[in-house]
Amino acid sequence: MGMLKNDQGILLVVSGPAGVGKGTLCRELMAQAGDLEYSVSVTTRAPRPKEQEGREYYFRSREEFERMIEGRELLEWAEFCGNYYGTPLFHVQKVLAEGRTILLEIDIQGAKQVKQVFPQGVFIFIAPPSFETLSERLHKRGTEPEEVIQKRLKTAEGELRQIQAYDYIVENDRIDLAVEKLRSIIIAEGCRVKNNLIV
Amino acid sequence: MGMLKNDQGILLVVSGPAGVGKGTLCRELMAQAGDLEYSVSVTTRAPRPKEQEGREYYFRSREEFERMIEGRELLEWAEFCGNYYGTPLFHVQKVLAEGRTILLEIDIQGAKQVKQVFPQGVFIFIAPPSFETLSERLHKRGTEPEEVIQKRLKTAEGELRQIQAYDYIVENDRIDLAVEKLRSIIIAEGCRVKNNLIV
Repeated sequence: MGMLKNDQGILLVVSGPAGVGKGTLCRELMAQAGDLEYSVSVTTRAPRPKEQEGREYYFRSREEFERMIEGRELLEWAEFCGNYYGTPLFHVQKVLAEGRTILLEIDIQGAKQVKQVFPQGVFIFIAPPSFETLSERLHKRGTEPEEVIQKRLKTAEGELRQIQAYDYIVENDRIDLAVEKLRSIIIAEGCRVKNNLIV
Repeated sequence: MGMLKNDQGILLVVSGPAGVGKGTLCRELMAQAGDLEYSVSVTTRAPRPKEQEGREYYFRSREEFERMIEGRELLEWAEFCGNYYGTPLFHVQKVLAEGRTILLEIDIQGAKQVKQVFPQGVFIFIAPPSFETLSERLHKRGTEPEEVIQKRLKTAEGELRQIQAYDYIVENDRIDLAVEKLRSIIIAEGCRVKNNLIV
């Protein structure tokens, strides 16, 4: 009945320094926004117990993954600890074609790759309220030795200077406020003239 | 304490065809969003009882108003029924400099003028859910003869084709949903990288 139609879904790229809390924010956002789809990655690592093909990951062999790289079937990819991880284009395109929003949580290097292939995405940078907070969070995790943490903090400082490539910046001070901002960005982007057709 | 600072307020221009309900939406938005400032117009018409200088309008003589036009002190202006009405730049600039958001509710012609002087504003087009609804609303008002209503509907049809000049389009189907969209746009715009400084 309405005169407007969202003809195309939105690719929401949520990125930021390690330890900034983007994982927590995205999980909370997914829990609150029912119509949001999560981008499922492809990996060459072996499935863990209870992991399901197409839910946690798409599991592929190295040969299959390398064929996807060559065929430009990945929005971005990287190698960690001997395994490939990447974002398959087919899943993103499928969700967008249905007019739905898809959420991609990714590190800064990955976001840079996505921006090259998919500049029409909405790029959100999650910022720590301060470097002290980021340092605290990285220490609290307790998973990394001090020198790795120091390196991460140095990286984060450099990354903060790259925010000009992003559309939005959301400070992760209080989770509820940050999630409200992310939800508002989704609603606002759905109202953008370029995302609407008059029918 | 945070690393981000909204260094500049946002000029929110809410426009749309006559009868689309933008007045109602803006009043509701003002009631809900406490930190929002309303743009007060300048006029040459005489104050009505209970109207206060600087609240409903700034009241000026024709000579003073014409001096403001010449001095480019108005974001836009028009003449209705022998009186001038305009948006004074000084009030908008004052609010923006304080880092606050200012709301300007205005017709399509006025919005066009504002866009020329202040392209960095956020331009929101309020659309009727359908032409049938717009027609109904204009008839319900009961303030205008049929031929004026028909002319307004024809104008609205032409105006809808101008939405490419706007940033956002919000369908005024249900008031509560439309107001939520306007609020989301304000929050999202506050998160835009270009509206934030890293301090």
